[in-house]
Amino acid sequence: MADNGSLEDFLATAVDAAKQAGEIIRKGFYQTKHVEHKGQVDLVTETDKACENLIFDLLKQHYPTHMFIGEETTAACGVTELTDEPTWIVDPLDGTTNFVHGFPFVCVSIGLTIGKFPTVGVVYNPIMDELFTGIHGKGAFLNGKPLKVSVQTELVKSLLATEAGIQRDKLTLDASTNRINNLLVKVRSLRMSGSCALNLCGIACGRLDLFYELGYGGPWDVAAGVVIVKEAGGLIYDPSGKDFDITSPRVAASNPFLKDAFVEVLQLSE
Amino acid sequence: MADNGSLEDFLATAVDAAKQAGEIIRKGFYQTKHVEHKGQVDLVTETDKACENLIFDLLKQHYPTHMFIGEETTAACGVTELTDEPTWIVDPLDGTTNFVHGFPFVCVSIGLTIGKFPTVGVVYNPIMDELFTGIHGKGAFLNGKPLKVSVQTELVKSLLATEAGIQRDKLTLDASTNRINNLLVKVRSLRMSGSCALNLCGIACGRLDLFYELGYGGPWDVAAGVVIVKEAGGLIYDPSGKDFDITSPRVAASNPFLKDAFVEVLQLSE
Repeated sequence: MADNGSLEDFLATAVDAAKQAGEIIRKGFYQTKHVEHKGQVDLVTETDKACENLIFDLLKQHYPTHMFIGEETTAACGVTELTDEPTWIVDPLDGTTNFVHGFPFVCVSIGLTIGKFPTVGVVYNPIMDELFTGIHGKGAFLNGKPLKVSVQTELVKSLLATEAGIQRDKLTLDASTNRINNLLVKVRSLRMSGSCALNLCGIACGRLDLFYELGYGGPWDVAAGVVIVKEAGGLIYDPSGKDFDITSPRVAASNPFLKDAFVEVLQLSE
Repeated sequence: MADNGSLEDFLATAVDAAKQAGEIIRKGFYQTKHVEHKGQVDLVTETDKACENLIFDLLKQHYPTHMFIGEETTAACGVTELTDEPTWIVDPLDGTTNFVHGFPFVCVSIGLTIGKFPTVGVVYNPIMDELFTGIHGKGAFLNGKPLKVSVQTELVKSLLATEAGIQRDKLTLDASTNRINNLLVKVRSLRMSGSCALNLCGIACGRLDLFYELGYGGPWDVAAGVVIVKEAGGLIYDPSGKDFDITSPRVAASNPFLKDAFVEVLQLSE
């Protein structure tokens, strides 16, 4: 199997990997309620690792010269530098808190960058059986049907998503709740679902109009989703309004109509 | 058909009504993205009314002497007093913002009070095909399988749910985000899904550990869910820690272990 396969080949292999990993997640999801808490944590770790091994093994078998960045690997081996080589950036289980609690927003996220540019993306929620896919220049799809971002032009009618994040120091928390306070005056309502990758897919399919998150885990949370949003006609940007940087844990997403007004309310310097 | 049917009869009729209304909601849910915004609002109103009519017609046909309280009827005719008579309290479409946006947390909520006491509850999410049911003294079920609240005993490992609500005056909003700020230091994370009835069901099945909401629409948001939570072994109380009052738009829910610690962090006077 050639490393220089077509983008469609890359996508097909990633979908195969995501579906197989999704099966592991689905089994674990319905088991978490039946184990003690210590066991739950083990189950997350086991599921996370089993999924990452499965995905990396399958991708490496097809594309042995490609590079790989994964949440589990990075946690174990430190920061992995993103190069211009084709690089698979994988979150084997996004939404681990949801996984433990049985809240149905969990997914596999598999993105491929080429020349550091997010080019192929697959996000699969095995509980709701929703497969989001995208290839740069070739559109985005949900279970094979084309995706479009919302056509909303007014903040006041927009549905916003963000996350509480994991940082609990007073400075970060106050800034976070103040931001939510400012935003709630302007938008229709707020959703927090616990998965960054699925929030991006929510923007891509128009379920959500606005999304931002600061301080998420790493590029594996967004590498696939940004392709899907852009191919659905959406914009990905730094919450300050500047260019999105995949190596910085800051992301905002919306349709093109809402960007300026959203950035103005976010009031975030880079 | 006898008005003095068994509680099981009442439940079976309510399930029948919820499933039929759910079919209307499911059809509308997948249409909202294909209509203009004016059309979306019409679609919500039409779906809401069609579901309420269907549910009330079916229930009245079986139980002509029962009383009825519904969101749509109350909005049109003013406050309806809750009496000791068997009273069906119905939200034909909980999560209307989600319905418009295509976010999958929408449901039908049908509760029955007898002597003002919530006695039968049905909550049906037609998008995820999840049917939550409960009868006082006879357990709670999800698609026929028994439900239990979580066994979590520590706030720091608990998943909290609340909602942004619809009030946007500065006083309410500041109080709301300050409360979230206080809570986020104490709990694992926060979810906002946009449906009060489904949040209660989330507590009942242990997906969520803690839920509170202030200022929701009316008793139709909670009448069914409180039966389901209590029958799953959970507690329903006023966020101040005092007794829950179905005529007041204030509710908190958790397993028995977490109540005292939750109330302490909520710091709400009655």
